[in-house]
Amino acid sequence: MQILQVKRAESGPSFLKRASTDKLREVFLKYASYQKNGEHFMTSEDFVRKFLGLFTDAAFNDESVRLLAGIADTSKDGLISFAEFQAFEGLLCTPDALYKTAFQLFDRQGNGTVSYDNFAEIVQKTELHSKLPFRLDSPFIKRYFGEKKQRLINYAEFTQLLHDFHEEYAMEAFRTKDPAGSGYISPLDFHDIMVNVKRHLLTADVKDNLVAITEGHKVSFPYFMAFTSLLNNMELIKRIYLHATQGNRTEPVTKDELLYAAQTMSQITPLEIDILFQLTGALHHTGWWRRKKFEANRQV
Amino acid sequence: MQILQVKRAESGPSFLKRASTDKLREVFLKYASYQKNGEHFMTSEDFVRKFLGLFTDAAFNDESVRLLAGIADTSKDGLISFAEFQAFEGLLCTPDALYKTAFQLFDRQGNGTVSYDNFAEIVQKTELHSKLPFRLDSPFIKRYFGEKKQRLINYAEFTQLLHDFHEEYAMEAFRTKDPAGSGYISPLDFHDIMVNVKRHLLTADVKDNLVAITEGHKVSFPYFMAFTSLLNNMELIKRIYLHATQGNRTEPVTKDELLYAAQTMSQITPLEIDILFQLTGALHHTGWWRRKKFEANRQV
Repeated sequence: MQILQVKRAESGPSFLKRASTDKLREVFLKYASYQKNGEHFMTSEDFVRKFLGLFTDAAFNDESVRLLAGIADTSKDGLISFAEFQAFEGLLCTPDALYKTAFQLFDRQGNGTVSYDNFAEIVQKTELHSKLPFRLDSPFIKRYFGEKKQRLINYAEFTQLLHDFHEEYAMEAFRTKDPAGSGYISPLDFHDIMVNVKRHLLTADVKDNLVAITEGHKVSFPYFMAFTSLLNNMELIKRIYLHATQGNRTEPVTKDELLYAAQTMSQITPLEIDILFQLTGALHHTGWWRRKKFEANRQV
Repeated sequence: MQILQVKRAESGPSFLKRASTDKLREVFLKYASYQKNGEHFMTSEDFVRKFLGLFTDAAFNDESVRLLAGIADTSKDGLISFAEFQAFEGLLCTPDALYKTAFQLFDRQGNGTVSYDNFAEIVQKTELHSKLPFRLDSPFIKRYFGEKKQRLINYAEFTQLLHDFHEEYAMEAFRTKDPAGSGYISPLDFHDIMVNVKRHLLTADVKDNLVAITEGHKVSFPYFMAFTSLLNNMELIKRIYLHATQGNRTEPVTKDELLYAAQTMSQITPLEIDILFQLTGALHHTGWWRRKKFEANRQV
């Protein structure tokens, strides 16, 4: 399962229109294979494999399918009623649909809260965890769930937890690759962490150049932090670029110009700017950074 | 000493012009009180108290003055030569002057690296540390300086360390105020942390409303994280607002509109948007967020 990475949509703000009840019922009945007292229901398989088209292999993981179906099955009785299906469609139309969907996956009891056990259960079933395990008794976990891990997390808090969890995961992966605590990891381990933990922020070109930009040197923890921070800050970098060129979208800027604009309006570090130029240099063999070129390599 | 907080300048990018050597020498000689073999030097006091105009009280802290003078005294011999003074002026004209200045403060040996001992020495002398101590053997410190705290940090890495240190400080302060690890702090402790650790990001209005926006409830760790993240992300929030209004700078937006724009282009969490509206509500008694009003309350 890869359910934790919130992807960015390409379009600007535009609210989704709700489907009509008739149209929805038509879709629902097409997949609902189960009947009880004359009422139709979707099973977990109906919803996940047939309707969503996920886990379509014959050898699918039954538990993953049940977990995913839990997003729509808010009564958690193993079946999805039409009312639940309609509510799911409504959820997808909300502006925070991705976070809400994730919350309903983690809220295993359907009571509006996520416990430590809920969180651990889902995390342990992710593909990422099987490759790079996350310590589920780490200080990070205790900060969110309390020292005794008994604090329940509501929806709003959960959104912050999920966001911060992604950041923490990268640090945790560094730790896993540097068990002796030397403060360095190998270029290959750097590559491994990035493609697993930060995959959603990498374009094909950046991915192919991850080892190249290290120039064979070990990657220090501050460099690692600056690299992930740069990936996160790409929207802000665009704004800083436009600030430096006073709105011109094709003008090349020097590192000093970009650095100057970065210092005056944000919290981008000089190391992040260094890495940006290393990266564009590796991609285009140039010391100048052209937004257009870089832009073309971004996944938005 | 409050030397760690990098403030944002109000102006756009415009490089500073270097002063002429004659003009610089004139200024230098005005303050240089020490002579050796016919050459003039500034003492630490000349530089910090007379030239910079800091620590002007009669009962000044001698050690703080010496530490600050170390920024210009790159040979670390206790005296500032004209060449050092000129180099300091040059440093102030670089686009990353604030980071470079901080680095020269922490680089106590003047060898281009910062050791754990250097870092600890300066941190322990800050006003903030005396109020809210930072654990100098924490996992954070070990990630940067290595398990044995023997790794040396160069300038580029230092910039990332300094940035991340500010983020970590807030979390560390939460931990200090919640020794039992309940996951909550009181509204007054929240206020205390914010005005001490995030003071440079608070306007007078926000500062005055810190307790009010908690509505008397305890502050949970995720809320705390979202709040500090919101303060850090204010530039991005502006961009999201403009995205939502398609560039219009006076149009009010609803929470859903802002949330929708935030989801499609960045990593702002729904909780951050909640807090933004709580904050503007507390300041202006309105559920609508007007950029102009909010803008007026920001310290830029």
